[in-house]
Amino acid sequence: MIVVRASGHLFDAQIRYPEWEVPNRQLQQWLQKLNLGGVILLGGSSAELLMRSQQLQSWATTPLLIAADIEEGVGQRFSGASWLPPPMALSAIAAQNPTLAQEYALKMGEITAKEALTVGINWLLAPVVDVNNNPANPVINIRAFGDTPAIVSDLTTAFIKGAKPYPVLTTAKHFPGHGDTTVDSHLDLPTLLHADERLTQIELPSFVAAISQGVDSVMTAHLLIQAWDREYPVTLSSAILTGKLRQQLGFEGIIVTDALIMGGMTQYATPEEIAVMAIEAGVDILLMPRDPVTAIESIDRAVQSGRIKETRIDRSLARIWQAKEKVVFSPPNSLFELISPEATKTTESILHNSLQVGGNIPLQPPPDRSGRNLIVIDDILNCNFLDIHTPAVAIPKKLGYQLQIVDRNTLEGVQLDTRNTLLQVFIRGNPFRGSAGFTPQTQKIYQQLIATNQIQGLIIYGSPYVLDWFFSQISSELPWLFTYGQMPIAQSIALKTLFNLSTDVLSASSSQDFGF
Amino acid sequence: MIVVRASGHLFDAQIRYPEWEVPNRQLQQWLQKLNLGGVILLGGSSAELLMRSQQLQSWATTPLLIAADIEEGVGQRFSGASWLPPPMALSAIAAQNPTLAQEYALKMGEITAKEALTVGINWLLAPVVDVNNNPANPVINIRAFGDTPAIVSDLTTAFIKGAKPYPVLTTAKHFPGHGDTTVDSHLDLPTLLHADERLTQIELPSFVAAISQGVDSVMTAHLLIQAWDREYPVTLSSAILTGKLRQQLGFEGIIVTDALIMGGMTQYATPEEIAVMAIEAGVDILLMPRDPVTAIESIDRAVQSGRIKETRIDRSLARIWQAKEKVVFSPPNSLFELISPEATKTTESILHNSLQVGGNIPLQPPPDRSGRNLIVIDDILNCNFLDIHTPAVAIPKKLGYQLQIVDRNTLEGVQLDTRNTLLQVFIRGNPFRGSAGFTPQTQKIYQQLIATNQIQGLIIYGSPYVLDWFFSQISSELPWLFTYGQMPIAQSIALKTLFNLSTDVLSASSSQDFGF
Repeated sequence: MIVVRASGHLFDAQIRYPEWEVPNRQLQQWLQKLNLGGVILLGGSSAELLMRSQQLQSWATTPLLIAADIEEGVGQRFSGASWLPPPMALSAIAAQNPTLAQEYALKMGEITAKEALTVGINWLLAPVVDVNNNPANPVINIRAFGDTPAIVSDLTTAFIKGAKPYPVLTTAKHFPGHGDTTVDSHLDLPTLLHADERLTQIELPSFVAAISQGVDSVMTAHLLIQAWDREYPVTLSSAILTGKLRQQLGFEGIIVTDALIMGGMTQYATPEEIAVMAIEAGVDILLMPRDPVTAIESIDRAVQSGRIKETRIDRSLARIWQAKEKVVFSPPNSLFELISPEATKTTESILHNSLQVGGNIPLQPPPDRSGRNLIVIDDILNCNFLDIHTPAVAIPKKLGYQLQIVDRNTLEGVQLDTRNTLLQVFIRGNPFRGSAGFTPQTQKIYQQLIATNQIQGLIIYGSPYVLDWFFSQISSELPWLFTYGQMPIAQSIALKTLFNLSTDVLSASSSQDFGF
Repeated sequence: MIVVRASGHLFDAQIRYPEWEVPNRQLQQWLQKLNLGGVILLGGSSAELLMRSQQLQSWATTPLLIAADIEEGVGQRFSGASWLPPPMALSAIAAQNPTLAQEYALKMGEITAKEALTVGINWLLAPVVDVNNNPANPVINIRAFGDTPAIVSDLTTAFIKGAKPYPVLTTAKHFPGHGDTTVDSHLDLPTLLHADERLTQIELPSFVAAISQGVDSVMTAHLLIQAWDREYPVTLSSAILTGKLRQQLGFEGIIVTDALIMGGMTQYATPEEIAVMAIEAGVDILLMPRDPVTAIESIDRAVQSGRIKETRIDRSLARIWQAKEKVVFSPPNSLFELISPEATKTTESILHNSLQVGGNIPLQPPPDRSGRNLIVIDDILNCNFLDIHTPAVAIPKKLGYQLQIVDRNTLEGVQLDTRNTLLQVFIRGNPFRGSAGFTPQTQKIYQQLIATNQIQGLIIYGSPYVLDWFFSQISSELPWLFTYGQMPIAQSIALKTLFNLSTDVLSASSSQDFGF
C-alpha cells in the first residue's frame, strides 16, 4: 500500500533530489524487506529508465507498480521518448473543432501508454481532470484539458479510452478538483469555499466521466473543502473519500494520495498521523510518505490497537492485487521502436493547430547579424528543452542572432540597450514558485525592453495568461507568436513561422564546433 | 579504413551536432553498404551508449571499432560512468611523489578500459602523450600529463599498462606532439618551427615510450612541421608517417588521423585529396572524413589509376584486422556494475592530492544569508558538471548564498555591486574558442569585482594558468582554492575545504522542491 519515490537514474551519484531519493542500497532493502507496492520515478533518459525498471522489478518481493507523472507523454520526464503538448493545447483546438481535439486526446492516451510500457512504466499518473477555471492557479494551469467541465470531460475520457487497450493503469487527478485554487498545495494547504452545488456542477463531472470510462485510480488533492468536510483535508477525509468517492460516485478502483511530502500535508499533521488517517479515510495507496518505515509502523500500531480494522487493509490489498493483475512487469529489452512516426506527427499537428500568431509576420532578421536572441527561462539548471541543437537556439544563430540565456536569478542583469532583440519567453505555471515566475520585477524588465523599442519579435512558450499580459503592452505591429509547447518541435514550428522559413534551415549548420 | 562520427543517443531527435551526426537511416545504410570500420561516439548516458553500441554492431557488416574521446574516463563524455580528473592533475602529484602519480595513471588506464568495455566502447582515443610546454596552448592544456618529456612518458606508459589487460585499443596522440602550439588545429593549421634536435628531445620521447609499451594506435596531429616536411602537414606526410613513425620508430600498429573535418585539414585541401594523400602517407584509418562515400570513391579512383598501390591498402587492412582480433564487440547486457568503489576512490585521491589552497581558510558564510554564489562557465548549453544537486550549487545554497550562473554571453550583465560574493570559475582550455574563454573583457570584469572587494572567496576549477593570473590580482588574505577537476566530486572537495565542512552537508537539503 506504499509507493516510494526513486531516481530514474541508475547510479547514486546521479541522484538529483537527495532529500527524496534514497541511495540504491537502501531502496533495495526497502523493496525486499518492506514488500513495497511500487515506485514513482523521475529523471533519466528512456534507456536508463528501461534498465532502472528492470533493476527495481528484480529487487522486489511482489512485482511493482512503476508510476510516473507523465501528463505530457513519457518524454516530458524522460529524454528520448515523445514529449506531447500540454493538455490545454487541446482545449484551444476544441473551441474550434471538438471532434479533432478528442481524436488528439485519444492519441495522447495511446502514445503515452505505449511508450510507458516500452520503458517499464505500468502506471500513468495521468490524466489531470481538473477544470482550470482560475487563471491565477499556480499549480494546475496548462496541465488541465480546459476550463469548463464539458471540455475537460470530453477530452480526458478520450485520453483514458486511448490508454485502455494497453496493460497500464490510468489516474484521474486531483480529486475532487484542484482547478480553482491560488495556493500551491506543494507549499501549503488551500481551502476551497465553494458550496456543494457549485462543486457538483464544476469540479465533479470530469471525475464522474472518468470513472464511467473505467479509470483505474483516482488521486486525492491536498485541499480543505469546507462544504464537505470542515475538519479534514480531502486526502484524510472519510466523508469525502469513502462517502463521496466510493459510495456516492461508486468508484471501485485504487484511491491514491497525492505526494504526502507536499507542504499541504506535512504542515497539517505528523507523518505518523497522516499515514493512519489516510488509510482510515479510505485510501488504498500512500504516495511518497516521508519514510515508508514510519508509515508502516504507524499503520501496524493502528491495526494492533483496533483503530484500523483488518478488513479495511484487506479491501485495499484486494484492489491493488486486482490492478496488478491487469498490468505487465517485464518491459522489452530494446527501445529502438520507442517513438512511432505517428507520435511525432500528432505532436506537430496539435502544436500547429493551437499556435497563435499576430503582428507583422514574417520578421526580417537584421542584415548585419546584429540581432540578440534573448531567451528567458525559469531555472537554468532545470530546463530540459534547450540545448545547442534545439531550434530556439540554433535557428536564430543561423540568422545571425547572438544568444543570451537568462533565468530568474540573472534576468535583472540583462542589458537594456540592445536593439533588434528577439525575445523568447519560456513560462508556464511552476509548482513550488508561488507566483509562476512572473513577478512584478520581471514585468518591469519586460516593460523597459518594450518601451525602448528593443524587441523586434516575441515568442511565448507555455502560458496563455502571460501572453494576455503582453497584449496589454505591445504595439499591434510587433510580430508575436504563442505556442503551448516548450519542446524542440514547438520551437521549430514557432521560429519557422516567425521568419517564414520553408526549408529545414538546420540542415546546414554554420558551426565549426563538433563537440571535442 | 574509415571511422565515422555518430551521436551516442538512440534517436534522431536527440542529435546535437546535425552537421556531423547523420540520422539513423543513413548511418545504418553506411554501415551495411560501405562496410565501414568503426564509429566514434559522443553524447548520451552510459545506458544509452550500451544500447547504441549494441544497435550499431547489429547494423555492421564487419564488427565495428567503437571509439570515444575519453581522456578522463568514460564519464567525461557519457553520464553515469566515472569522470576521472584531467591528466595534468597527475603531473602536479608527480612533482611531489612520482610513484604515487604513476599508480594513479595506471588506475586511470584500468578504470577507463573497464568502463569502456561495459558500455560497448572498444577503442580508447587516449592517452594524450603531448608535452604541454606552452601555457598559451588552447587545445591541449590540462589534457596533457605534464610539461616535460620524462613526466609525460612515465605517466602515459603507466596509463597504457593499466589498460593493457583489457580487450580494448589504446591511442597515443597527437603525433609527433601538439603541446607547443598556440593555434587551435580545430580552426587552422599550426606550423611548428622547431629543429629536428628539439623535436627529438621534447616531443618524441613519449611516443617512443608509448610504442615500446605496446600502444595499439597512434593519432596524427594536423600540424606543419617544417623541419621534417616543408610541404605536407603530418596527417598527409609520407616523410613523417612512413619515414619517421613506421621506419625510424618502428611502429607497427594502427595510424589513425585526427578528425579530418578539423579546420587544420579542411583549409588545406579538398576532402577528396585529403583522403588519398593520407592513405598515401601511410595512414590506416581516416577519422571523421566529411563524407565517407566521397572518401571511398576518391581512394578507389586512386587505386584504379595506380596512384595508390593495392599492397598499401592490404597492409592497412591487415593491421586493422589484427587490432579487431584483440577487442570484443559484445558488451554485457547490464550496467549495474559500471562504477567500482575503487574508481570513485581514485578520483577523490587524485583530486585531494592535487588541490591547492590559500588565503584565510576557512571562509565564514555571511550570517544574514546575504551571500551571492556567482558561477562563471564557458557555455551554459554545454555544461555537464552543474545541476540542482551538484555541490557547487547545492552547498552554497544550504549556506544561504543566492545563485547566479553566467556564461560568456551573459557575464557582461553581471551586477558589480554585490558584496559577499563567492566566485566559482569553471575554465579550461576550450577547443574552438581560440582564447580558452579568458578574454581581456572577462579579465576586466574580474578586476572590477576584486577592486571593489566584492569577492569573499574564490574557487578555480580547471586551468592552473588562470589561477596564475588571479594570483597577480588578489590580496594574500582572500581565501582561494584551485582544483583541476570540474566534476561534482571536485566541487565537493573544494567547497568542504573552503568552508571547513566536516559532515555531509548535503544529507539534509533545505529544499521543498521535489521535481514535479
